[in-house]
Amino acid sequence: MGLNVPEDLARELALANRILYDHQIVDGLGHASVRHPDDPQLFLLSANRAPALVRPQDIVCYRLDGSALDPEAPRPYLERFIHSEIYRARPDVQAVVHSHSMSVIPFACAGQALRPLFHMAGFLGEGSAHFEIRDAGGDTDMLVSSPYLGQALARSLGQHSCVLMRGHGSTVVGTGLRQAIYRAIYAEANAKLQLSTQALGEPQYLSTREAQLSSDMNDGQIPRSWDLWVQRLGALDF
Amino acid sequence: MGLNVPEDLARELALANRILYDHQIVDGLGHASVRHPDDPQLFLLSANRAPALVRPQDIVCYRLDGSALDPEAPRPYLERFIHSEIYRARPDVQAVVHSHSMSVIPFACAGQALRPLFHMAGFLGEGSAHFEIRDAGGDTDMLVSSPYLGQALARSLGQHSCVLMRGHGSTVVGTGLRQAIYRAIYAEANAKLQLSTQALGEPQYLSTREAQLSSDMNDGQIPRSWDLWVQRLGALDF
Amino acid sequence: MGLNVPEDLARELALANRILYDHQIVDGLGHASVRHPDDPQLFLLSANRAPALVRPQDIVCYRLDGSALDPEAPRPYLERFIHSEIYRARPDVQAVVHSHSMSVIPFACAGQALRPLFHMAGFLGEGSAHFEIRDAGGDTDMLVSSPYLGQALARSLGQHSCVLMRGHGSTVVGTGLRQAIYRAIYAEANAKLQLSTQALGEPQYLSTREAQLSSDMNDGQIPRSWDLWVQRLGALDF
Amino acid sequence: MGLNVPEDLARELALANRILYDHQIVDGLGHASVRHPDDPQLFLLSANRAPALVRPQDIVCYRLDGSALDPEAPRPYLERFIHSEIYRARPDVQAVVHSHSMSVIPFACAGQALRPLFHMAGFLGEGSAHFEIRDAGGDTDMLVSSPYLGQALARSLGQHSCVLMRGHGSTVVGTGLRQAIYRAIYAEANAKLQLSTQALGEPQYLSTREAQLSSDMNDGQIPRSWDLWVQRLGALDF
Repeated sequence: MGLNVPEDLARELALANRILYDHQIVDGLGHASVRHPDDPQLFLLSANRAPALVRPQDIVCYRLDGSALDPEAPRPYLERFIHSEIYRARPDVQAVVHSHSMSVIPFACAGQALRPLFHMAGFLGEGSAHFEIRDAGGDTDMLVSSPYLGQALARSLGQHSCVLMRGHGSTVVGTGLRQAIYRAIYAEANAKLQLSTQALGEPQYLSTREAQLSSDMNDGQIPRSWDLWVQRLGALDF
Repeated sequence: MGLNVPEDLARELALANRILYDHQIVDGLGHASVRHPDDPQLFLLSANRAPALVRPQDIVCYRLDGSALDPEAPRPYLERFIHSEIYRARPDVQAVVHSHSMSVIPFACAGQALRPLFHMAGFLGEGSAHFEIRDAGGDTDMLVSSPYLGQALARSLGQHSCVLMRGHGSTVVGTGLRQAIYRAIYAEANAKLQLSTQALGEPQYLSTREAQLSSDMNDGQIPRSWDLWVQRLGALDF
Repeated sequence: MGLNVPEDLARELALANRILYDHQIVDGLGHASVRHPDDPQLFLLSANRAPALVRPQDIVCYRLDGSALDPEAPRPYLERFIHSEIYRARPDVQAVVHSHSMSVIPFACAGQALRPLFHMAGFLGEGSAHFEIRDAGGDTDMLVSSPYLGQALARSLGQHSCVLMRGHGSTVVGTGLRQAIYRAIYAEANAKLQLSTQALGEPQYLSTREAQLSSDMNDGQIPRSWDLWVQRLGALDF
Repeated sequence: MGLNVPEDLARELALANRILYDHQIVDGLGHASVRHPDDPQLFLLSANRAPALVRPQDIVCYRLDGSALDPEAPRPYLERFIHSEIYRARPDVQAVVHSHSMSVIPFACAGQALRPLFHMAGFLGEGSAHFEIRDAGGDTDMLVSSPYLGQALARSLGQHSCVLMRGHGSTVVGTGLRQAIYRAIYAEANAKLQLSTQALGEPQYLSTREAQLSSDMNDGQIPRSWDLWVQRLGALDF
């Protein structure tokens, strides 16, 4: 294991990466992280690898400035500042997922919010936040590749659980790793439903209270889905 | 086997759960049940597990008040009242499937009925019923988690074979387990067709008589599909 | 092998059924047939089984009145008259595929013709034909389950290569079995393209001459695809 | 290996073909080529086989007039002139992919350009080019099957990285084989996003500068995806 990387959590984070890929939330790109359980100023994230290939030994411990604890850590993701700055700005957040899932991006690019259409997406509450990187950085390569851009993203996220990133993808946060994975999967599902429902007629979204109650209830049901998601992965190479 | 659970039927119900998952009608959530063949006041339903993982030994016998016959039965689904109250209200119903399949939900959320576009969906008759949980329970967590809400759902279902549940999913019923599975699969297929057809122009639905005749005819063809569905599952872990 | 069923052709027809299933052109329903090479008054079609499960030994030889040559043949498809009456009306036709593929049905139900959007679908020529079973039989169970309805379907087909069947599905014909399979696969692909293109703007279809030239050219390329389709099936149980 | 075919590059090109198929960019048709590393007047392309079945020993070395170096080379693709004439017209191009991917064709047939909606498609720059074969050849079988038509296509491509071909498909070019494969995969992804975004509202495309910066940045990330794509193929038969 890498320096200051708890073995169990490294395994859980590797599983989380594989699950995101298995559900087509990420392809060769995208990443999931978790705050260090012993030190809120640290977080765990894979080195630069496709999520489908992440193994426990690829997990690296980073500081909130985006630097690896281990000076000999392998090449990092360019966008680790998405994670570091959200952990800095949101003490309640324990896990972050950044992805380019295909039904969410159209909302980011049409400037429309995701809103919860069914109970599984109650965590979307009153809607997703929106991040326009051009407001913060002018013309860029669209990556959140500096503390400065990460801070701008964290400001756009605010107290939401999901922020859409124009021309890029989205980021969801959770109070635990499994919850963040669940949210990435169901943000995509809800986006697919929104696309279809808007084509049919006027969507009836969950009320704010329905969304809150659903979200609280769903948190108790995540283990049932998690067991299935792990089983779907089949035999692992770690 | 659990208390008062016929072994053959437990196996059939486990297969039914796996088939629903294999056809993407359910993911980690959703459930299928069947009325007890020897006592109409009882029904069989899995304990709280993802449908893809249900084995014969997970099947539990419940009373129509939602309580398990076996006082030591494992944790039940919160929504078993969907099943219990439909069995109470509809003596003709022998099986119930509750799901969140992705093409059906948009109709539930746009307040539009499913109507039969092709013979395979003749069971939809003059259209699906609609359930607005807010009318019965105000702001809720969207789950049908009490006898009271189950009764409201059963009233909305009325004599239909399918009820759409706003902000949630749908429930179909049948006069046998295989028929209910068939209906869950083809309600989703019909919803997908309706979405596409409405985008093209004015859909020509089956007439009421065509729907009835198709539905009667299809009931004789279900074994052909069932054989395929079981074969698709491959080797089973039970 | 069944009575008067050439072994090689039975194997080819079983492969054809499996290929249609593998490409999601058929599910538990649908069927492919081929005219008997030695007697144009006969044709070969599987007995009543899901296409994915058809083996060479399931192939039965039928007369053009829909009766099996072998008095002890297993239960036939109800809709064998689709095949028999097209073979009777169209001496040029050597193979027929009937299916319910999901992108084609919306055109049948919106009363719009398929028209060739790309060279692979040149066989669609000036467009698909349309069959309204109600014109021939009033309210029915939507199945072409008699010589009378088969004749009506064959009349609607006319000299086209594809007829859409309202509330049901479609039927394509070819001058050989592989060509008919090819056409069933690319009718579905073209339908998918038409749905998307019509959402974007005004589709530019192939001209009649482009369609004819493409169709002639493609016929020489079918072996390349057929080799792939067989390979995709993997190990066979026959 | 074929005459003047470097063994390593033949293997890489066979992998590239398999990757395109695995990502559903090609089916039984479509092809990828690479310019010969030692002689810019030559290029490597498979003989006439489905991309999913291409092995290193199927790779043939062609001259820019479309003739095979080896007089005993197996049957070539009819459309090798797509490749030869682009290599002639564009000295910067080192690899070419021609495909019929299903989300791109609607844009070709509605006469709309692909434009970059997210950073992964920055290579689309200010939009795709458009090729109308009828302008060059009148009514044809839609194939670019002669040097003359290949030259017309190359003229339409101009300095773009992607040209849509009405009634047919598309062609992308790159400065290396892996980059061209990447572009074929993400042109399809971007097309899918454009279809959905246009249904939602007014798409916000990348600015020209954002597209350029994204494209340059992505080129450094291709190895991460390539590793995954090769791993997805599993065991190879070569």
